[in-house]
Amino acid sequence: MNVEIITIGDELLIGQVVDTNSAWIGQALGNEGFRVVWRTTVGDNEQDMLDAFDAAMNRAQIVLVTGGIGPTKDDITKQTLCKYFHTRLRFSQEVYENIETIFSRGGRVMNELTRNQALVPEDCTVIQNTAGTAPVTWFERNGKILVSMPGVPYEMKWIMSNEIIPRLKKKFLQDVYIKHHTCWVKGHTESLLAIKLTEFEEALPEYIKLAYLPQPGIIRLRLSAYCDTESEALRIITEQALKLREILGENIIVEEDKPVHEMIGELLIKMNLTLGTAESCTGGRIAAQLTSIPGSSAYFVGSIVCYANRVKEQLLGVSPLDLSEKGAVSKEVVEQMAKGTLLTLGCDCSVATSGIAGPSGGTPEKPVGTVWIAAACRDKVRSELFHFGTNREQNMLRASNMALLMLLDMLQS
Amino acid sequence: MNVEIITIGDELLIGQVVDTNSAWIGQALGNEGFRVVWRTTVGDNEQDMLDAFDAAMNRAQIVLVTGGIGPTKDDITKQTLCKYFHTRLRFSQEVYENIETIFSRGGRVMNELTRNQALVPEDCTVIQNTAGTAPVTWFERNGKILVSMPGVPYEMKWIMSNEIIPRLKKKFLQDVYIKHHTCWVKGHTESLLAIKLTEFEEALPEYIKLAYLPQPGIIRLRLSAYCDTESEALRIITEQALKLREILGENIIVEEDKPVHEMIGELLIKMNLTLGTAESCTGGRIAAQLTSIPGSSAYFVGSIVCYANRVKEQLLGVSPLDLSEKGAVSKEVVEQMAKGTLLTLGCDCSVATSGIAGPSGGTPEKPVGTVWIAAACRDKVRSELFHFGTNREQNMLRASNMALLMLLDMLQS
Repeated sequence: MNVEIITIGDELLIGQVVDTNSAWIGQALGNEGFRVVWRTTVGDNEQDMLDAFDAAMNRAQIVLVTGGIGPTKDDITKQTLCKYFHTRLRFSQEVYENIETIFSRGGRVMNELTRNQALVPEDCTVIQNTAGTAPVTWFERNGKILVSMPGVPYEMKWIMSNEIIPRLKKKFLQDVYIKHHTCWVKGHTESLLAIKLTEFEEALPEYIKLAYLPQPGIIRLRLSAYCDTESEALRIITEQALKLREILGENIIVEEDKPVHEMIGELLIKMNLTLGTAESCTGGRIAAQLTSIPGSSAYFVGSIVCYANRVKEQLLGVSPLDLSEKGAVSKEVVEQMAKGTLLTLGCDCSVATSGIAGPSGGTPEKPVGTVWIAAACRDKVRSELFHFGTNREQNMLRASNMALLMLLDMLQS
Repeated sequence: MNVEIITIGDELLIGQVVDTNSAWIGQALGNEGFRVVWRTTVGDNEQDMLDAFDAAMNRAQIVLVTGGIGPTKDDITKQTLCKYFHTRLRFSQEVYENIETIFSRGGRVMNELTRNQALVPEDCTVIQNTAGTAPVTWFERNGKILVSMPGVPYEMKWIMSNEIIPRLKKKFLQDVYIKHHTCWVKGHTESLLAIKLTEFEEALPEYIKLAYLPQPGIIRLRLSAYCDTESEALRIITEQALKLREILGENIIVEEDKPVHEMIGELLIKMNLTLGTAESCTGGRIAAQLTSIPGSSAYFVGSIVCYANRVKEQLLGVSPLDLSEKGAVSKEVVEQMAKGTLLTLGCDCSVATSGIAGPSGGTPEKPVGTVWIAAACRDKVRSELFHFGTNREQNMLRASNMALLMLLDMLQS
């Protein structure tokens, strides 16, 4: 069942806001067997919206539209949908009451613009948005569906999960079942891996796709099977995953489509271990990743973000002599940071990062991108030197990823 | 000058990767007076790509394509561009040598797939990608431009900044100048602000747009002027910004299109102050934000991510009695965290967060979304209680934003 997404808003086009909604929708629908095949972003401009609605309704069975339905003048999605579907706005008492409820909960007073939020197109199904004041509208024309939702991420997610996906599943008998299988492969560049998998890829049936999703230091391989029945999709994907395992052996770290920090969390719970981090060049990114998981307080105790060397000395017990002689970016310092974390935070395991993120601060011996990472677990410590690139953001991200991978490896060994 | 962006990749459609490239391109081009008017995302599928190329080339003068030019079999953008432009691939010695240079730098060995990266379409200008192995191709047809670039964010950014934007500026005499003016407004909901600005908005000339970009606790207002000359755009936008200032007065916190953490960094440097954070419910997000700025080590010393209460006591000197009697999410604890940070990290200013991010952990008195935030600067401390929603990710983000705003406010007062 083919789906298109249309996201609306000048703020997306000029880049003041990154569109995270589309990726979320793609994942949520993919899990249910729907397939997003096309995405369009247009501004708050009537003609562009009309063109986008028309093209999408011609190509796909389901069109999901987000954004442009706030109370302000620049938001014209509702009016444009009326024009496209040859209908007009009416006042909805139920929507009005929902807005009143939300306002009274927040102790706010309704005004004329919020009252306009209760205007909805005729000839469509109105779905209450209990997470916000903009109503959701569901249009059916010639067996095709167009749904208009708010662009605010948490409202959209709530509505999709609780209202739209259940309705879509009920409405459409699914004629194609999709199964994905992901494995994380280490020890290869993308092209070397592709050469290793040439025969495997050439022998793949047409209804199976293989995708390479490289990340710093690791490649996520994704097999996707598109079949008529769920059992067929499962059978095919299991068969091909087995072949991959035969070819790649121990280079497959894990076969789950799950971020590394989630796998770490599950292992720590299973092993009944606690974790802390000591972050210099990653500046709190590893802690932020780890705490994004609900329930992470069961194993994550905290972090020392030690941007200043003084903090490394005073809170982590790093030797001032090593700091001055070997430098903050050194094996000695990063290992002391990892071990110091176990003591200072009173935890079983730790990771520590110290590097030169850039763009400045590099020297001939330690150019920008030089990063030492250590992982410790009780009395074991391991450290490794990395040479990343010249981009600050990229270096911080790579260092965080590699630190998590090093920890995962230590927990698994 | 109208621009369209086409991003290619199944990984975008199924949501394994969030498209951050488009927002970056929108910003970078907007600053130079180009206007992104439409974005399309399609999968690694020939027909969809052909349709997307065709629609975009019909609508816009400039089409920027990212993704699908890696060495592996699923990447077919290069071949599809040949089909679309009725041309074929040739071997490029210069590109081959660039790849060799990059490989020898990383100590890697070329293979047959990386060699294929040196195949480029005939009838186009090839631009060397010194940041990676996939060449950039620039097609000109009937005065219109299509550029194909890698989807890897740091490669794309390097190429856009150093190669594409300079060429586009040289090529196109710009017939429309765009100026944006942004101000941050506090103390209003989106709809209340819109009511206050009704007359202002109605009096705006057609070539000026006003957009509301609400964030938790604050609204970014953006005026955009589209004029024939740069001086006209500047004159108009200055005039309208003055009117906004008259209407909104002190509710305008600042008039810069700059993230709050950047404004804080500039103020700290100007005032010669240092900063640290103590993060419970934000888990390192504030530190990560602050350290994203190059040179932030001049004022940012570090953070204590104190997820466990034990860490709050031992490292920040929070009273065990207050922790057990008032609870971790209380005015007493969060103020002690902020003050403790000044001592433990030896800095002049701090922010501290303690709250219930959810989805579990709430109680009738302190439901999920309850967050205490404190800011301290030398002997001043302020704290405030917030009631956010039920979404973990959203709560962590709101708490980080509000903490930074509280700090900005303290520094400005």
